[in-house]
Amino acid sequence: MRKMMFSFFLSLAMIGAAPVIVGQSPDSPALMPLPAHITRADGQLLIDSNFHVDLQGYTEPRLVAAKTRFLHLLFSETGIPLVENTTSGSPILIVQTAAASDPVQQLGEDESYHLEITGSQAKLSASNPLGTLHGLQTFLQLVRETPQGFSVPALTIDDQPRFPWRGLMIDTGRHFMPVDVVERNLNAMEAVKLNVLHWHLSEDQGFRIESKQFPLLQEKGSNGLYYTQQQVREVIEYARERGIRVVPEFDVPCHTTAWFAGYPDLASAPGPFKIETHWGVFDPAMDPTRESTYQFLDRFIGEMAALFPDVYFHIGGDECDGKEWDANPRIQAFLHAHNLKDNAALQSYFTARVQKLVAAHHKIMEGWDEVLQPDTPKDVLIQSWRGPTALAAAARQGNRGLLSTGYYIDLNQSAEQHYLADPLGGEGASLTADQKARILGGEAAMWSEFVTPENVDSRIWPRTAAIAERLWSPQDVRDVNSMYARLAVVSQKLQYYGPNHLSSTDLMLERMSGEPAPKALKVLAAVVQPPEGYKREELRQYDSTTPLNRLVDAVPPESDVARIFAGLVKQIVSGKASPLQLQQVHDWLVLWRDNDAKLQPLLKDSDVTAELVPVSSTLAQVAAIGLDALDDLQSNRPADPGKLQKEKQVLATAEEPQAVLRDMIVPSVSLLVGATEKH
Amino acid sequence: MRKMMFSFFLSLAMIGAAPVIVGQSPDSPALMPLPAHITRADGQLLIDSNFHVDLQGYTEPRLVAAKTRFLHLLFSETGIPLVENTTSGSPILIVQTAAASDPVQQLGEDESYHLEITGSQAKLSASNPLGTLHGLQTFLQLVRETPQGFSVPALTIDDQPRFPWRGLMIDTGRHFMPVDVVERNLNAMEAVKLNVLHWHLSEDQGFRIESKQFPLLQEKGSNGLYYTQQQVREVIEYARERGIRVVPEFDVPCHTTAWFAGYPDLASAPGPFKIETHWGVFDPAMDPTRESTYQFLDRFIGEMAALFPDVYFHIGGDECDGKEWDANPRIQAFLHAHNLKDNAALQSYFTARVQKLVAAHHKIMEGWDEVLQPDTPKDVLIQSWRGPTALAAAARQGNRGLLSTGYYIDLNQSAEQHYLADPLGGEGASLTADQKARILGGEAAMWSEFVTPENVDSRIWPRTAAIAERLWSPQDVRDVNSMYARLAVVSQKLQYYGPNHLSSTDLMLERMSGEPAPKALKVLAAVVQPPEGYKREELRQYDSTTPLNRLVDAVPPESDVARIFAGLVKQIVSGKASPLQLQQVHDWLVLWRDNDAKLQPLLKDSDVTAELVPVSSTLAQVAAIGLDALDDLQSNRPADPGKLQKEKQVLATAEEPQAVLRDMIVPSVSLLVGATEKH
Repeated sequence: MRKMMFSFFLSLAMIGAAPVIVGQSPDSPALMPLPAHITRADGQLLIDSNFHVDLQGYTEPRLVAAKTRFLHLLFSETGIPLVENTTSGSPILIVQTAAASDPVQQLGEDESYHLEITGSQAKLSASNPLGTLHGLQTFLQLVRETPQGFSVPALTIDDQPRFPWRGLMIDTGRHFMPVDVVERNLNAMEAVKLNVLHWHLSEDQGFRIESKQFPLLQEKGSNGLYYTQQQVREVIEYARERGIRVVPEFDVPCHTTAWFAGYPDLASAPGPFKIETHWGVFDPAMDPTRESTYQFLDRFIGEMAALFPDVYFHIGGDECDGKEWDANPRIQAFLHAHNLKDNAALQSYFTARVQKLVAAHHKIMEGWDEVLQPDTPKDVLIQSWRGPTALAAAARQGNRGLLSTGYYIDLNQSAEQHYLADPLGGEGASLTADQKARILGGEAAMWSEFVTPENVDSRIWPRTAAIAERLWSPQDVRDVNSMYARLAVVSQKLQYYGPNHLSSTDLMLERMSGEPAPKALKVLAAVVQPPEGYKREELRQYDSTTPLNRLVDAVPPESDVARIFAGLVKQIVSGKASPLQLQQVHDWLVLWRDNDAKLQPLLKDSDVTAELVPVSSTLAQVAAIGLDALDDLQSNRPADPGKLQKEKQVLATAEEPQAVLRDMIVPSVSLLVGATEKH
Repeated sequence: MRKMMFSFFLSLAMIGAAPVIVGQSPDSPALMPLPAHITRADGQLLIDSNFHVDLQGYTEPRLVAAKTRFLHLLFSETGIPLVENTTSGSPILIVQTAAASDPVQQLGEDESYHLEITGSQAKLSASNPLGTLHGLQTFLQLVRETPQGFSVPALTIDDQPRFPWRGLMIDTGRHFMPVDVVERNLNAMEAVKLNVLHWHLSEDQGFRIESKQFPLLQEKGSNGLYYTQQQVREVIEYARERGIRVVPEFDVPCHTTAWFAGYPDLASAPGPFKIETHWGVFDPAMDPTRESTYQFLDRFIGEMAALFPDVYFHIGGDECDGKEWDANPRIQAFLHAHNLKDNAALQSYFTARVQKLVAAHHKIMEGWDEVLQPDTPKDVLIQSWRGPTALAAAARQGNRGLLSTGYYIDLNQSAEQHYLADPLGGEGASLTADQKARILGGEAAMWSEFVTPENVDSRIWPRTAAIAERLWSPQDVRDVNSMYARLAVVSQKLQYYGPNHLSSTDLMLERMSGEPAPKALKVLAAVVQPPEGYKREELRQYDSTTPLNRLVDAVPPESDVARIFAGLVKQIVSGKASPLQLQQVHDWLVLWRDNDAKLQPLLKDSDVTAELVPVSSTLAQVAAIGLDALDDLQSNRPADPGKLQKEKQVLATAEEPQAVLRDMIVPSVSLLVGATEKH
């Protein structure tokens, strides 16, 4: 994979600078997640049109389908036609599966596999199909090209996951995601060995699944954008074929406005209700005091429990503001009558009742932090958005838990930030072994205020692959440089699985500019990012009807160019930069300084690019300051204090988002300018 | 669309030169095919999230589905969320359909529509859903961005097709094309108003459809790569929803090796037979002398006639070499006994029998040129691969016909060549009005020796859009510059329909190079083309197991860069070039000359790029010669005869394909060099 790594930086250099070589050694394959144990050997196994796969031992339709999919992906990786039922010659890849896995995939089943590759053959063995599926993905990640042709390196891998629950949550409530979006993300999940799709199906802004018991849920609550039960069954089967469990979430008692559009009697306030079109936390909440609420939920949960085979059932439970409860005298009377001291206690009462319903339908309840109370049954699974301390508290109390704090991929954080968040980090490190065993893993959470089917993949991938590694690989696998180097390779390969995380940016830039290859816009796009955290909503008014078709929606959450540039600048200010690195920084700054003149004439022609006029000119200004500082540093010239003062002002202003975009080179240029002072 | 046109050339310039402005006027929308009548008005209709569509008059599920698809595409074109069932406010697009079309789409149904757009509303009307579908596509092509936002221009269009049969043939016999490939091409066909998918389902190299009557056809004849009947039904329905008829082809009596793998008794020679893996014309032919052959075909045609609702049924009939007939004494005896003077007469006998079987199953037979004989029934439809003379002969004889000569999109010809081929050109022009009326249209033919599911779209699109215009628009629409200008816009938009004709090149170059953005390889890729016609097979040995994963498979059949470069060079040698144009040619030549040094280090690292070493160095050499000539021309310096001699030798060698690739700038550089002589 050496070549891919080298070239990755070369290609970043296309955006303006010469290559910088970092990353892994030539001998380290770009696997993600990294296996538990890997031993390299000499040689490689060539892949040509004689390649064929033999399924041995236990078999089932899922394995046959996996083989077909494997061959299709191998074709994508090589362009070599691989006809499925070739029987001539000895098999090149022998797949040995010992026995069946559980009919409905269970938490904690054996997912291990053993892969041995020599110069003449590869052998994959696993105790059940789950391990086989993982091993096939590892094989695909090993494929690279060489002067001899496409091949995989000789090696031995013994692999199994660190955590049994490795999930991706997709919020289909706020922006609906059609089945093809869900399925292409399931493809990519399989590629990085994630094993749980947490399907967030109801929100204030939409109820997204067909209920036959209560059809007004989808009829009044979805604007026509919902999954039929047949589609749900297909998605579950699609996931099962890929070794992925599907856990549905129906968020109660709050985040429920869309339920009330069809069934206002469930609510704590008088109706009528309309689907919410704004973002935020809203007042509508189910009425926890009426028996009719529980009768409704019993029937509804029963219907959904039959539809979703997985034993876990997520009931949400987050972010109740209690305002409707406060405002309803009948509910207040109920509190007093039942000795419930506050709304938290009322929610706890509600949760306990719901938990019994869930259990009666033979499911294990899962909920967000808020559902954990002192008397919460021990089998309730807690998903933590509040953080490691809350998660550790759950484990100490005897409940099992999942970490999602640190894995909120809607917040436009770096892959590094997500990668270093560990389910057993922080408070978790101080747990006893028994308590640690209750931490089952974690889930990346794709909340969907600011994503559409068009750009959602670019928010999920490639960063979620780094989270997948955190959840699969040994805890001490934490080398950020290695992670980024491998992530670049895996991101390229994920294109063969269906996600459009790389192409969507280009397509959106083309649409914005009306050009097939808007180079100057791409130069700008490569160094800006959406604001981190929840800042975006402070900068501009958004709701569910706002088009997400601007630069902030098109660019990935993390700028690779700015990240690499920052690394180079750090070398410079620490006095360790090579002449080549200095030249790279210089070339990039020149590119950015001169880009504005090329880009400006195009920006005014379109409503969606007009707002970029100041963004582009700021980039030019900042780059010019950087060039100036670089010049001072290289000439060992003391910086002029008056000029410094002015430049710092410009940089301080440039730190602020414009057109809802952060200019990601500003911090590095500030570092350069700061360094001139120390001379 | 002015901006798109301008920018298209700008972006080509990204590959190395400054913009050259050609193409249409700002007022001419980039529609393809051009409508029969168009009247521009002042103003435009803005598209925002209030946009909604109202179906009025006759409706049916197909129209509701078309509306959903339309809104989805409009979202792709704008990024503006358009919720389907918004009912607030007055509709922005009123769609008025008068009545149903035929339950099974018929040749020659009314496909006309009327579209009127003002500053406040658009109204589309059609006599049946076929016209409605076409009108919706026209609307989508009108969408562009402006400083005010996304919009369509105010105008009135009255439109109907010139020919009733506008087809695309896809050969799924030689390389199988999975259902998703077929469906995404049906999407694109709808976009350019093609209305027939001619599905070529059997070949020497594969029998691609499930027969329940004769299951060994697919079991022994397809290597597992075939369509189930359920899939076929789905494709037919998918096509019907898009106003597209599906005509199956089962090529008999030759091109039938794959049939014989399961049913050797059908053959004229003793078996056993294996699926053919080579390309070419092969000897195996059905035995036309045995009654069992016709009994088999009767049952088979009956089964397929029930599966495919269209009234036309294509039986192929092309390219019989007759060798197996010659070699079989029993068949020779049959010839004598029946007074058949040669193999053509024998095939004619066979065809007449098959025609009766087809007719007995209530279908109209279609066949290639060869099926036309003096006594061929008048309702047999002739598809011509032999050319306008053969087609005119069919029309004179009273048969109806389709042109495919000139539309063989596997031959790597230019869009211009296809565009100027007219079903009523050549001999066709001399036909009487009645005879002309027998020419029903034409079909692009995608033969699949050199395409896989990965690159087939890039062979079909965008050039087939030019053929679609030839078959839809008035005969006098023949401005090649306008065609190319609009084709560039339509090609971009076709990306939203699913074909990967643009992205596949990039993905394949990435795979070849192991780089995410292999710029130097792209520079080379932009100026080379696959050989035209059947030359490729002379240059290298190919069969169905050969990987199609090299540069020749990745690049489009027509180099836009080389075409535009050629136009500029013509300006220069005619002395009409502007300083800007001269500069562009110079910049491009410098880019190509200097590219080799950047590309060479990367080429040797991979088996699939090593062969490009001489291709890249030749490009550099040719570019250097071009620069030299340009310099001579600009300095008005007489060329040195010795140097000229040497340069011409280099150019003559460079004309020859290397690595199965043509260097498309050679002819233009030769033109430059030639011009220096005339000084």
